[in-house]
This record gives sequence, structure tokens and C-alpha cells, in this order.
Amino acid sequence: MVASREIHLNSRPHGMPRKDNFRTITVEVPEPGPGEFLIRNVWMSVDPYMRGRMHDRESYIPPFQLNAPLEGGAVGEVLRSHHPDFKPGDMVLHMRGWREYALGDGSMVKLPPTGAPADLYLGLLGIPGLTAYFGLFDIAGLQKGETVFISGGAGAVGSVAIQLAKIHGCHVIASCGSDEKAHWLREETGADHVINYRTVDDLNAALRAAAPEGIDVYFDNVGGEHLEAALDCLKLNGRIAACGMISQYNDVGEGVGIRNLLMVVGKRLTIKGFIVSDYMHRREEALVPMMQWYHEGRLNSRSTVFEGIESAADAMIGLFEGTNTGKMLVNLCSHQQHGIEVEFI
Amino acid sequence: MVASREIHLNSRPHGMPRKDNFRTITVEVPEPGPGEFLIRNVWMSVDPYMRGRMHDRESYIPPFQLNAPLEGGAVGEVLRSHHPDFKPGDMVLHMRGWREYALGDGSMVKLPPTGAPADLYLGLLGIPGLTAYFGLFDIAGLQKGETVFISGGAGAVGSVAIQLAKIHGCHVIASCGSDEKAHWLREETGADHVINYRTVDDLNAALRAAAPEGIDVYFDNVGGEHLEAALDCLKLNGRIAACGMISQYNDVGEGVGIRNLLMVVGKRLTIKGFIVSDYMHRREEALVPMMQWYHEGRLNSRSTVFEGIESAADAMIGLFEGTNTGKMLVNLCSHQQHGIEVEFI
Repeated sequence: MVASREIHLNSRPHGMPRKDNFRTITVEVPEPGPGEFLIRNVWMSVDPYMRGRMHDRESYIPPFQLNAPLEGGAVGEVLRSHHPDFKPGDMVLHMRGWREYALGDGSMVKLPPTGAPADLYLGLLGIPGLTAYFGLFDIAGLQKGETVFISGGAGAVGSVAIQLAKIHGCHVIASCGSDEKAHWLREETGADHVINYRTVDDLNAALRAAAPEGIDVYFDNVGGEHLEAALDCLKLNGRIAACGMISQYNDVGEGVGIRNLLMVVGKRLTIKGFIVSDYMHRREEALVPMMQWYHEGRLNSRSTVFEGIESAADAMIGLFEGTNTGKMLVNLCSHQQHGIEVEFI
Repeated sequence: MVASREIHLNSRPHGMPRKDNFRTITVEVPEPGPGEFLIRNVWMSVDPYMRGRMHDRESYIPPFQLNAPLEGGAVGEVLRSHHPDFKPGDMVLHMRGWREYALGDGSMVKLPPTGAPADLYLGLLGIPGLTAYFGLFDIAGLQKGETVFISGGAGAVGSVAIQLAKIHGCHVIASCGSDEKAHWLREETGADHVINYRTVDDLNAALRAAAPEGIDVYFDNVGGEHLEAALDCLKLNGRIAACGMISQYNDVGEGVGIRNLLMVVGKRLTIKGFIVSDYMHRREEALVPMMQWYHEGRLNSRSTVFEGIESAADAMIGLFEGTNTGKMLVNLCSHQQHGIEVEFI
């Protein structure tokens, strides 16, 4: 038995999540039974999609239950094992985040010995990286030489998408919400134009100025005004990969809608939504080249790290306040080695 | 020389078109020169897309010019010809509508001797029919056995789409704006469920009641609340063929937007806009089976006919008031034979 703190959903947020929607409790995790092993979580992923699971409604993934631990991607170290394939010291990727210790079983994924820091499997080499890859190349069918607009460019998905599009030989316009993020995107990800949407007067005009000929593809992480600006700026036969719409996740009641959807008809646009879990059977198709680009130094990663499970609610709220640059992580075990270029908060 | 009345755009409509946006003037049409022929127009098409051409803005088709005749699909009879391929009595399909007489040239299409009434080439066997066919089968990829919702079901495109979907073995839900239209759709087009959107309290609930399992495809002619209801009701991997959004064509300023577009992500929806002119090279693919179904009595047509060119503005305004059941036509030459099942106004 080991004492483990975990985060429960205390109440369902109405609008922006508040700290009192979450509660930290301590439980006893039993010793692993036959075929099981005990995991000490090291890294925990905090992602925008989790906001949707806080609603009690039908969706592509079941809602979080009240008074039960939240769930989400995590990487941990095997401490004690009764499973022949998992040895103490092995690093495991799994969905039992939001807690310090968890019991594991044979359905979990052991991290391969790639030399990449473990936390990258929650970002660049994990769900966000796969989302960027399949969104750009499969959903939007991005072609070499095209112009792509990527909103939420400083987020976990957006920052990978920018780099992948640049490797693919595309012209990239990205948006983000601070001058510091804009500087990072320009200097480190290779974005050709960066728009700080919080400081421009007119997002449509800023996008049009960055792409006078129009854009071929819009990778949407934000929705709302970003999506309207993209619809206005897309060329004939343009495509939208609808990955997420973070600007709307905390909307209460009926928000403001998208007013220029009629553009879809005259410009023959395609809007295609996707969830990366549909691509898990094709993950190697993305991970093999991405791992190579990572080792060649062509794909870089940055994270914002909150320390300790007691900071997880702040990390979640921070996602919607734009606190993170790159992947938002919680480090649950600070003596473990971190990935490169992390920024502690 | 022949005296011909034609309709000019007198001023650009702001919101719903008014009669004073149009002006009837009389011009002298010269005798045909070498390679030309003189056409007496018999049928003139009035279509929702023409509203877009009344704005002075860039679009997929140039705007109408002020103080110049409007343009649009028409069928006429050759009166006098200096072109070897066009003889007096031939019926010609062309784009010089909104006038009683026009000069023709070799770029125009002579109607084939199919035995189908000439006006059908402006409806069932013309642009609206092709729009229904390629929208359903190419853009939306409608499959046998699927459930499809077709808004604007009593319009020129919608009423053909309903029949094509039924021939294809699909379950069809249609919407329209009067009980009389609903009766026609149920009795004559084979629609399985018809929703009169003007009399239901809650379009979402009505659609959900008609399709408890959800819809696979939405063929959008209307936009607005219809589109929101469809987004709510679409199944996983559902598709929207975005053909038109007539509810928004007369919007002034920033209308109400589509508030639930986030559904696109979680349900992996695809919204695809299209303009039928992109399919002209494939028209035979649609017209061969459609002609056969027409001759077999499986595809039927209905028109609402205004008499005389002086009624053309009323016909145009009537489109947005729901005056038409089936194809909206203006008959310019009433001694000519009409297609079947026309309703004169």
C-alpha cells in the first residue's frame, strides 16, 4: 500500500473552471496483484479537450464522474511489478493521470528506448504531435508550397504543426496570445508570420496582410473570430482541419456564432473535424519521421511545467488563460529528469 | 430589328429585394449577323444564387452591373439564323435570360430531341437537377440505406434531391415552409418525413423525432437554424453538402451565426461547399440516368410559373418568400407548350 494524492472533480465548471471545481484527496493504492504493477507517475498531461469531459453530456469520450479521479495521459515509472513484461525502472505511458501512483496492467505502453525524454511522449511524440501530423497531412491534405494558417500556434499541437508545415516546405502564418510567445514562434519554430491576436485591432486584416493571396489551409485550434478570419481569407478549394475550438470551451449558454459560413459554398471550402484517436492504428506512419526529425534537431519541443499534483487545477485553468508556451505538463516527481527546454512555474 | 423588353438592375438591394431594384426597359435587338441567330426566349429561370450577384463584390461569379440586363438561364426558340447548326424552330439553352429576345451564337447548347418539355432543362434536367445529383452523390457521398435531411425540400434543387435519394434507397427527411408544400413532398416526391419549419416549435426536436438515430447526411439549401439543427442531429462521421444558405442571402450586416460548429470536431463531421459549374464536364454522368428515371416516371418535376417578363421581379422576390413550389420560372411566350404540372400565378 502506498499513499497517493489524486485530483477529483468536485463540481462541474460553469464557464471558466475554478479551483473549487477540483479537490485533492489522499487514497491508499493497494499492492499490485497478479499481472499488475505499481506506477509512480512522473509527468501528467493537461489538455484543452479535458474541459469537454467536465460536462455531463454525451460526446466522443465519456464525461468525467463527480467525486472520482480525473483521467488523462501520464508517464510513470514502474516501481514494483507482477507482470513479466514490465520491470521496475521501466517507463510507461498510460491514461491514469491526475494521481501520484496508479496500478498498471498489460494494456499499457512501455516507452521505447529512443533516448527521447519521457515527457515528450505526452507532447511532441504523443497525442499532440500525432494530432498536428494527421491534421495537417491527412485531414487538410497540406501540400508543399501551400500557405497554412495555424491558430493557437504556441500550444502543444500548434507549435508542432508549425514545425511540421515548415519541414514540408509550406508558408506558415501562426497566431498566439502574447509577444513573448510570438517571439518564440518566430525564432524557434520557423513560423513565417506571427499574429498576436490580443494586440491586433482587426484579425481579418492582419491575416490578409500576412497572406495577401489568401490561405490554402487553416488548422483550427481556436474557433470563434479566428475561424471567421480564416473563412474570409481562404482561397478557392481551401481546407480547414477542425482540431479544436478552445475559445468556445468555456462558453455558457449560446455563444456568438460563426457568421460567415456561407463562404464555404462560394469558395468550395471543406471543413473536416477529427479526433486523433481515430489514427492510432497509423501512429507509426507519423512517429517514425517525427522521431527522425527530432533527433536531427528539426523538430523541437517546449513545455510549461507546473510542480506537484496540488498545482494540477492551476495548470488546467492556465490552459484557458494562455499561461502555457508549448505543452502544459505537471511534474509529479521532481527528482526525475526533465525534457529539454522546460519552463517551471 | 425586334423590340425586346429586358430587366435591368436599377439599384442594388439592401436586404430583401424590392420591385424598385429592377426596371423593365425596351431595347431594339438587331438582326443576327454572320454566325448569329435570333432567339425568342420562352422560359426564364429565377434562382436564389442570383441574389448574390446583386452585391457588388468578388465571388465565384461576377456581380450584375447596374443599368444593364440581368443574366440567367433561359430556353428560347431560334427565329432567324445565320449559323449552320441552328435552324429556325430549334430550342436553345443559354444564359441570356431576363429579356424577351436575344442574339445567339455557336457557344450555346441546342436542346436534344429527348421528348422532355423544354422548361425541364432549367430544372430537373438542368442546373438544379445536376446540383442535386452531384451534391448528394459526389459531395456528400450518400450511400444506400443512409438517412439524409434535405432542407428547402420544396425548392428546385431540394425536390429533385429528395427523389434522387429515394431512388438511391435512402431514408429522407425534408423541410419546407407550408403545409401545402409538405403535402406535395409526402405524396409526390416520396419523402419519408416532412417538417414544416414555420409551424414547428423546435426544429431541432422535430428533426430528432424524425431521425431518432441521427442523420448521416445533410443537404443544406437553407443555412441558419436548419444548419444548426443538422449539426446537432448528425451522426459520427456525418457529411454536409453545403449547396446554399437561402435564409442568409438577404441578411444585412452581421447576421446571427452558427453557434454549434464545435460539433464538427467531436463528431468528425465534414462540411463541403460546392458550385455545380465545377461539374459541367461530368454532366452526362448525371443526365443519362436522370433522363431514364424521368421517362420511367420515377423522377417528377413541378414548377411555379410567373407570366410575362414584367413579372420577373416578383418571381425573384417570391423565391425568398417561399412563393414557389418546385422550380421558379417565368414564361415569356405563353403560346408555347409548357412542361407538365405547372402552376400559373
